[in-house]
Amino acid sequence: MSRFWSATARDLQPYVPGEQPKLPDLVKLNTNENPYGPSPRALAAIRDETGDRLRLYPDPDSTRLREAVAAYFGDIVPAQVFVGNGSDEVLAHAFLALLKHERPILFPDITYSFYPVYCRLYGIDYRTVPLDESFALRVSDYAAPNGGIILPNPNAPTGRALPLADIERLLQANTESVVVVDEAYIDFGGESAVALVNRHPNLLVVQTLSKSRSLAGLRVGFAVGHAELIEGLRRVKDSFNSYPLDRLAIAGATAAIEDREWFERTRQAVIQSRTVLTRDLEGLGFAVLPSAANFIFARHPGHDAAALALALRQHGIIVRHFRQPRIEQFLRITVGTDEQCAALVAGLREIISA
Amino acid sequence: MSRFWSATARDLQPYVPGEQPKLPDLVKLNTNENPYGPSPRALAAIRDETGDRLRLYPDPDSTRLREAVAAYFGDIVPAQVFVGNGSDEVLAHAFLALLKHERPILFPDITYSFYPVYCRLYGIDYRTVPLDESFALRVSDYAAPNGGIILPNPNAPTGRALPLADIERLLQANTESVVVVDEAYIDFGGESAVALVNRHPNLLVVQTLSKSRSLAGLRVGFAVGHAELIEGLRRVKDSFNSYPLDRLAIAGATAAIEDREWFERTRQAVIQSRTVLTRDLEGLGFAVLPSAANFIFARHPGHDAAALALALRQHGIIVRHFRQPRIEQFLRITVGTDEQCAALVAGLREIISA
Repeated sequence: MSRFWSATARDLQPYVPGEQPKLPDLVKLNTNENPYGPSPRALAAIRDETGDRLRLYPDPDSTRLREAVAAYFGDIVPAQVFVGNGSDEVLAHAFLALLKHERPILFPDITYSFYPVYCRLYGIDYRTVPLDESFALRVSDYAAPNGGIILPNPNAPTGRALPLADIERLLQANTESVVVVDEAYIDFGGESAVALVNRHPNLLVVQTLSKSRSLAGLRVGFAVGHAELIEGLRRVKDSFNSYPLDRLAIAGATAAIEDREWFERTRQAVIQSRTVLTRDLEGLGFAVLPSAANFIFARHPGHDAAALALALRQHGIIVRHFRQPRIEQFLRITVGTDEQCAALVAGLREIISA
Repeated sequence: MSRFWSATARDLQPYVPGEQPKLPDLVKLNTNENPYGPSPRALAAIRDETGDRLRLYPDPDSTRLREAVAAYFGDIVPAQVFVGNGSDEVLAHAFLALLKHERPILFPDITYSFYPVYCRLYGIDYRTVPLDESFALRVSDYAAPNGGIILPNPNAPTGRALPLADIERLLQANTESVVVVDEAYIDFGGESAVALVNRHPNLLVVQTLSKSRSLAGLRVGFAVGHAELIEGLRRVKDSFNSYPLDRLAIAGATAAIEDREWFERTRQAVIQSRTVLTRDLEGLGFAVLPSAANFIFARHPGHDAAALALALRQHGIIVRHFRQPRIEQFLRITVGTDEQCAALVAGLREIISA
């Protein structure tokens, strides 16, 4: 604590990201990274951009990338696309531009733990809405006056997806405030709400290239919505940092969005590995929530989750455990390669049978 | 304007960066980019990092880069270094973490036009302090109760530098609030206040790799100060975006900081070109402010600045003109290569003699 800090800086409770261990040879299943590398076309595009041109500022509007995102979805235009330094930055701007109003915003009690952090940063009041006993989200619970609604689909860290019909029901009932659907994991089994943006002017859909495009190390995320919502985000961005995406990120992300074949192949591989991993963990006695993400959320009725996480670490395998009410007996396990998943299952079998 | 925007988003007056023209073959002297390319070691480091590793999140603390910055300055430790996505992001966090207090902050009337934009974004009250008639900054003018002080050294867009003794005098008189010295252009002739951070716990020095390290396209800036100030910045950063620097930016920036030979050679070349350019413009009748930056700020007593900028554009040369009281008769001209400077001088000679 320093007397030079603002009241805002003093009162923050910063987000703690999953560990990025410096040890090599760990089986790293703790931060939902993609086990497959990025598109070779993305890597080639980055190499092409690595030259004297780096002396020049990037395009502050990331026009090429916004055009690629619009073309990928097909029925939207670049003015409906906003891009940022990871979906975390996009979400931060959305909180300040679109979710800061008189009334509290609503989000699930079990969800991405960055949401309350943004609220504290920007002085936004919020109310959490409990998931049901099976960690499913009931959209009828959100029928209350609010300053906005944000929910991840699939939810994190549960992995549970909400059908598109439920999102549409939520939007029909909630027309006076912005609904943000945070689709970091949508490509692993969910239905994207981008299909609804042209019908609902208050819908903002946020996605990231960190997961299904395997570019966590490049920091690119985007939002899709009505051009007026995008303009609100742009106003905040242009009051914060004119050039959030560097030249390499714009080049790599554009090529990654355009390489649909690599995207399809790698996401299908993750989905298949998830099916096998779920079956194997159930075989060890775990209860596994239905997952539409690149991770699973599981608990074992006979073993404490924190103890399991610690024992796995001693086996050189790291997973994520949240010390948080309702979910402290769960482990969040990223779907790795088949070899990594097999190592995890073998480790757990040994720990459980010890 | 949208009914879904927050009051903050409605009231913003976003910053307008210098144009990034899409036309090739322009002599681009409008955004103070370095005419020489980045360090070849920086480019090699980026290429080395361009591979499957991009699937993994970067180090959220950018430890390697912070160590390189600390080693570059020599008498500071990594806990005194904060890094961000360009110095614009570093400045934004400094405004929220360190400059948002009850009292208004102070900055010059003629200065980096992003400062009032940050104030509006975060609801910070400010008061501008006029430069003297020759656009010099008198530190005695800042002896008023304040919530903080921010000044660029050298100042932008004037290019005038403040001696280190003046900064120290300011710090001795102002011990109760944070003083931010924004040194985007320091390496082209100023004396860095980093030399003072170990004696003044309220001093934060901000620098960028966009200018003297020729990496505007990579988006990396940093701040140096007392570890408590750095911790305040880190709290805001970790409440906004855990990973503002991507893997390529960390790798390239670290190598650029380490390559002192390239840095020395290119900055000396810019300084030499500035001397020639200043003399040539004076030969055409321009009044040129003394510059310690990689740009010069000049006016011609017989020609309107806006008209000159427009005429230059018709010659394929772009410079920056600010429609702003006191400086509307000035042009801000980036120091380019000797060839670019010669093209500018030839163009101006033709325009003036027409």
